Amino acid sequence: MVKINENFLKMQKNYLFIEIAKRVTAFSQAHPEADIIRMGIGDVTMPIAPVAVEAMKKAADELGVKETFRGYEDSGAGYDFLREAVAGYYQSFGADVKADEVRINDGAKSDCGNIVDIFGDGNTILITDPAYPVYVDTNLMSGRKVIYADSNEQNGFAAMPDESVDADIIYLCSPNNPTGSVYTKDQLKAWVDYAVKRGSVIIFDAAYEAFVSEEDLPRSIFQIEGARKCAIEMCSLSKTAGFTGVRCGYTVIPSELTVKASDGSEVSLAQLWNRREGSKFNGVSYPVQRAAEAIFTPEGQEQIRVNIDYYRENAKIISSTLDEMGIYYTGGKNSPYIWLKCPGGMGSWEFFDKLLSEANVVGTPGAGFGKNGEGFFRLTAFGDRERTKEAMERFKALKF
Amino acid sequence: MVKINENFLKMQKNYLFIEIAKRVTAFSQAHPEADIIRMGIGDVTMPIAPVAVEAMKKAADELGVKETFRGYEDSGAGYDFLREAVAGYYQSFGADVKADEVRINDGAKSDCGNIVDIFGDGNTILITDPAYPVYVDTNLMSGRKVIYADSNEQNGFAAMPDESVDADIIYLCSPNNPTGSVYTKDQLKAWVDYAVKRGSVIIFDAAYEAFVSEEDLPRSIFQIEGARKCAIEMCSLSKTAGFTGVRCGYTVIPSELTVKASDGSEVSLAQLWNRREGSKFNGVSYPVQRAAEAIFTPEGQEQIRVNIDYYRENAKIISSTLDEMGIYYTGGKNSPYIWLKCPGGMGSWEFFDKLLSEANVVGTPGAGFGKNGEGFFRLTAFGDRERTKEAMERFKALKF
Repeated sequence: MVKINENFLKMQKNYLFIEIAKRVTAFSQAHPEADIIRMGIGDVTMPIAPVAVEAMKKAADELGVKETFRGYEDSGAGYDFLREAVAGYYQSFGADVKADEVRINDGAKSDCGNIVDIFGDGNTILITDPAYPVYVDTNLMSGRKVIYADSNEQNGFAAMPDESVDADIIYLCSPNNPTGSVYTKDQLKAWVDYAVKRGSVIIFDAAYEAFVSEEDLPRSIFQIEGARKCAIEMCSLSKTAGFTGVRCGYTVIPSELTVKASDGSEVSLAQLWNRREGSKFNGVSYPVQRAAEAIFTPEGQEQIRVNIDYYRENAKIISSTLDEMGIYYTGGKNSPYIWLKCPGGMGSWEFFDKLLSEANVVGTPGAGFGKNGEGFFRLTAFGDRERTKEAMERFKALKF
Repeated sequence: MVKINENFLKMQKNYLFIEIAKRVTAFSQAHPEADIIRMGIGDVTMPIAPVAVEAMKKAADELGVKETFRGYEDSGAGYDFLREAVAGYYQSFGADVKADEVRINDGAKSDCGNIVDIFGDGNTILITDPAYPVYVDTNLMSGRKVIYADSNEQNGFAAMPDESVDADIIYLCSPNNPTGSVYTKDQLKAWVDYAVKRGSVIIFDAAYEAFVSEEDLPRSIFQIEGARKCAIEMCSLSKTAGFTGVRCGYTVIPSELTVKASDGSEVSLAQLWNRREGSKFNGVSYPVQRAAEAIFTPEGQEQIRVNIDYYRENAKIISSTLDEMGIYYTGGKNSPYIWLKCPGGMGSWEFFDKLLSEANVVGTPGAGFGKNGEGFFRLTAFGDRERTKEAMERFKALKF
């Protein structure tokens, strides 16, 4: 008789954002007249760049003609034109990444989850808390031991390594989802040193790098010395270029990143990952890869800059409101997320329900991101300008 | 220190088709003048249908305008418009599938591999041999016990259940890759009965269903009574509609398919799979889903029929050549694959090298699909008409 993976039974029944969607649907069915403003799931609202639309349409036309039709990619790792564009982008801000170290994927979430396949079950996983639920969920699904590094008010929601803790795989996200905090180069160097010393691997989620505006802050872990010996980076065009519905991201595994196997051989993690992907993935849609390529052209970069600036201005509107109300928060400056302390000492879900029912505004309960998120709440700057202003007006009118 | 998943070290270093690509590249570099005909990897050559091109372009335009922009799908399981189209397609040939039992994916390969996540490590996996390498590879990666059911000349390369063998998860593929054999309804019923009796699950790969031309042969396992209690089906538009580079498929898990967990609770496999996908997948590109929807319209079905008939004619050309040469083969009639016995008692890779070096034709060595594939060879009907004819002329001219 077939046996299920019983690790699933130990997990929360629903993925966080599916739970939120359910509650919002229930409220909206009970109150069809309510004008709901959604600042919950971190989804963008601005259209994709004109260069990306044109590139995708041109590629669709190519697929419709025998002479220019393309089927499977040979490797499934992404076309050279895109891998080279991604490497060039990294090099433009001083991160040492080569085209053949880049694998194109359908978004950072898939690889953040699937990467666990190449690691043994006996690893101890260190995850900063609060964190994007995918890191925890995917490791619990495979029955791994997960420990946490506390991000909290004391450290400005930017957890730092503790030399007394032993971890084999470390998940970091900067600019952070959900807290909006950004590691400095020195802070990230401390994590790299910690990993190199222990022979650990850092899984670095850089999905929000495009929101870093201060020049001194790192946008990639590969701007840090030593990272090529210990880090894997995932990034995505979802937030950078509004590709949440287009689906394209990339994973970088440096060629130097090797691990000693039990037989003494040095195993390349990039090769293991290629083997995994060769058997479980067939590459990203060709028109999507062409759209992504267009984003990395000077014209594409110019076009996405307009949207990113728009979201940054929304973030300012939210953070100014919180300043005005005297509410503690992190993020909002080099990040599209604002992480605030729930007013009146409320719990996360309590505040979620109050905000939804009294202001008809949807946010994300901090508790959904881990125990240190209890009493906190995430708002996103990805909304429409007028709706963001309206949401802040409704927020200010609430009584606590 | 981080530990790798050492199961990878027990596997062949390269995925079969990557190994073939390497050998072909090496030959082609050594013989730049060689006019190579590729009948190896099962990739299509005809362009995608005009309705799919137009749908994709229209969707790209929608993403470029704020009012019609779409970001994340709520569920990531596919838009209702496509799930309903897929369910309608199943119903059109008498398979009982509902829209909410369909999950849209980026191709059958991903789900065939990733589905192992929801099952426990203690399962015994039964795979017909020869088989598509993904079934074996993904189970070896996760350290599972794999046993084989022999497909061979005696049973026309269509393995049948053996009541004395105990298996928890069974992979079946019909029309079969690589052998081109197709199960009859009675044969498939025997597998369903075997699975229901044991509480086993069948993973049914229907990627080649569109090539079934005989009305009596099943195109889906859900045409068989009892299958809704034991089967998961994967299908794809790759071969049906030339989507190998577009990337779209679907997985069906019936609502009745439950498994008793160790705590006695009945667990829905569809719910487990949704939980897995909710954490590790974010849905398929919106323009790709619109292109797929177009394929299921009457106009789309008409357009893809032209290509399928074209490939069927190629299959006839290949099988007539083999008839003429007196070579044993299976497939070619309800399948785009022709599975032949290597002439002159040659081994699979020996024949691969001879065909490549002397006829400059690339095929797939049967040994790459399992031990029963040794001495056999796969050719595909997905090529260009003139090139297929040319390849057959060159084949006939070889001396053994």
